[in-house]
Amino acid sequence: MLRRGFQVAGRLSQHRVLPGVPQVLPRLILTSTFGSSTDSLVSRFCLEKTGLKDYALPNASWCPDMLSLYHELQEKTKTDGWVKLPSFKSNRDHIQGLKLPLGLAVPSDERDWRIFTRCIQVEGQGYEYVIFFHPSKKKSICLFQPGPYLEGAPGFAHGGSLAAMMDETFSKTAYLAGQGLLTVSLSIRFKHLIPVGSLAVLNVDVEKIEDQKVYMSCIAQSRDQQTVYAKCSGVFLQLQLENESPQ
Amino acid sequence: MLRRGFQVAGRLSQHRVLPGVPQVLPRLILTSTFGSSTDSLVSRFCLEKTGLKDYALPNASWCPDMLSLYHELQEKTKTDGWVKLPSFKSNRDHIQGLKLPLGLAVPSDERDWRIFTRCIQVEGQGYEYVIFFHPSKKKSICLFQPGPYLEGAPGFAHGGSLAAMMDETFSKTAYLAGQGLLTVSLSIRFKHLIPVGSLAVLNVDVEKIEDQKVYMSCIAQSRDQQTVYAKCSGVFLQLQLENESPQ
Repeated sequence: MLRRGFQVAGRLSQHRVLPGVPQVLPRLILTSTFGSSTDSLVSRFCLEKTGLKDYALPNASWCPDMLSLYHELQEKTKTDGWVKLPSFKSNRDHIQGLKLPLGLAVPSDERDWRIFTRCIQVEGQGYEYVIFFHPSKKKSICLFQPGPYLEGAPGFAHGGSLAAMMDETFSKTAYLAGQGLLTVSLSIRFKHLIPVGSLAVLNVDVEKIEDQKVYMSCIAQSRDQQTVYAKCSGVFLQLQLENESPQ
Repeated sequence: MLRRGFQVAGRLSQHRVLPGVPQVLPRLILTSTFGSSTDSLVSRFCLEKTGLKDYALPNASWCPDMLSLYHELQEKTKTDGWVKLPSFKSNRDHIQGLKLPLGLAVPSDERDWRIFTRCIQVEGQGYEYVIFFHPSKKKSICLFQPGPYLEGAPGFAHGGSLAAMMDETFSKTAYLAGQGLLTVSLSIRFKHLIPVGSLAVLNVDVEKIEDQKVYMSCIAQSRDQQTVYAKCSGVFLQLQLENESPQ
């Protein structure tokens, strides 16, 4: 398993199609102890940034369930250690100011890059979501409301849209909880379809961090927990961040 | 396993949030033999339809690899039994004229519904893909070129965008090869990142159809097969189509 994980990162450097895409991707330091604390990672991730729109804020398209649970969780950011994560148009904005793996740089490029889960900017039509993270519990909660551009079966969210939402929630959780940066595997069991325009609550737990991998689980369900939409497990690869061990 | 699959379909009827979304979803007929032939399903699916744009046609954004492999496969539609599947903006367009599971109707609704993998209509920015299907071999090939709106790590496609592309290719394959309609499970192992703007070739095989489930595998790789991007297995639930067994 460990060897296989390293292959994932090690081979990333072979591919380069677009100008400006990093040619050399992360070198792994096998003896790394991954020195950044979760609190340090969170504070860097949630820095106030001028001029960047945060898409993880309520808008007129949010259904009442999503809006009221958002406000409940916002209250818990004041009293219970939860942190609301900002969500910018591009991962390039998130990465600015963060420690990065060795060899990974954000290339300059004039194209309109968007993180997949913010690919549709019309309110309510695509992904509406907000992620809350709890640093000491290493848990996340994602409130997800799929719009009509995410349809699969008529009136319901496409299974792939939920898979992507789970992957993205895992991704942010893995980074903040343990410097996990690359998806190694996802395994999803679908139970019920999510009606378009309704709320799905994704509860993510970090199960363990072992052999430079972050193991997580996710259950997506209705707010009242009476309907399980899907269950998922995910494994992310930890990568040594550059500033931890300058060479 | 069998019982679990039925729970998936059986419970679908519990959820109804939006007006017009079907209240009662498919009733399963356990003794069904699923009478439609693959050829019959394919011919209904590929009917010429006036006024609907087929998004699975070459455009100026396609990279040379994608364009040349498309033309190679188009040649095989004339000589080797391959069929190019049309791809409309919405699954509602695909479903028109098809046999549907008992109880599933397409509600009328003025909203701009889009199948998730056609959610972005600007050429080259989101999903560019075309699926070819071979009825007697029960295989599919999907040519997939992710655009900059599908980004995850800078310059590379988001893992979730590939997961959704695999799910969608499975979905069309499962329907045509064996009336499989609902995703039961997806399991993906990621090997390399796909550079934005480059071609990934998804080869899908139906491994078996058993216990009213369609079992499929997918390997996503570069055109020269030297780089494996990901491997995936998927299980879809078969549902009895209405016209097969009127009650």
